[in-house]
Amino acid sequence: MPPPTPSMASRMSALVLRVLTFIFLLASLIILTTNTATLEVDLVEVKVHFKDVYAYRYMVAAIVIGFAYTILQMAFTLYHVATGNRAMSDDGSLVFDFYGDKVISYVLATGAAAGFGVTKDMKSIFAGSGNFDQFFNKGYASASLLLLGFICTAILSVISSYALPKHV
Amino acid sequence: MPPPTPSMASRMSALVLRVLTFIFLLASLIILTTNTATLEVDLVEVKVHFKDVYAYRYMVAAIVIGFAYTILQMAFTLYHVATGNRAMSDDGSLVFDFYGDKVISYVLATGAAAGFGVTKDMKSIFAGSGNFDQFFNKGYASASLLLLGFICTAILSVISSYALPKHV
Repeated sequence: MPPPTPSMASRMSALVLRVLTFIFLLASLIILTTNTATLEVDLVEVKVHFKDVYAYRYMVAAIVIGFAYTILQMAFTLYHVATGNRAMSDDGSLVFDFYGDKVISYVLATGAAAGFGVTKDMKSIFAGSGNFDQFFNKGYASASLLLLGFICTAILSVISSYALPKHV
Repeated sequence: MPPPTPSMASRMSALVLRVLTFIFLLASLIILTTNTATLEVDLVEVKVHFKDVYAYRYMVAAIVIGFAYTILQMAFTLYHVATGNRAMSDDGSLVFDFYGDKVISYVLATGAAAGFGVTKDMKSIFAGSGNFDQFFNKGYASASLLLLGFICTAILSVISSYALPKHV
């Protein structure tokens, strides 16, 4: 078997990064959406979900968008590896990768930042009431996984910037 | 006078975007750091500053980092225009622009996201107490200006990605 060409090596490392992004985003989404807390208001127990924190809603939206994009890119790569054809023209595909990775990495970065910001401040406001500490710790866990997903996508964005055709 | 070369045109548009970033970040910083609210706790008035909201502290840090980078880049551009020399080698300068614009645009994006996230949620928690509405509205104004600064830097990041030398 001949050694893989640089293009093949970079395609494989991109695929590995996409799979890592996929795993981090999936784990982040599961932790965030299954996270609940119980608050006692006048002897009535109120359940608190991620939906009750606006920043967590934005996080879920960011994760879902990043997730859909990552699946699309993995499908493109597998199609390319399996058939040898690209779904788009060579240049079109590189430009799509460049803008896609760039925009999605901003979406994931802002999602993680909103999550960290709101968790830090809400945690100090609600310290000691109900099981909020656990609720916000899971918020941190979810935001950390989203941050890892962002880092993978940011590296992909650097790779796709270098691959950009110069004559466009 | 001959028409400006494309390279000169792109350098001028980059300078305009840097000046816009500079203005947006300066305005954002002034609004955020001068923003105060008064809270009455047990008949004692407590002043609330941006320092009391962790996400706003991160915003200030993000703005200051972006501000320092923008001034450095403007100084490089003016030095280049005035003397015809670059402070770094051509390739080094393009790679510095690429990574600089990329990292700083992430810093500004996360700053704006943390600001918006915490403002939205804190505003609904503190609705009606003291003059917090005004405090958080100024938080929105500051985050919006930071978002505009981010958009300018993101455009600069696209330009510097296309300018990246291919042989590195």
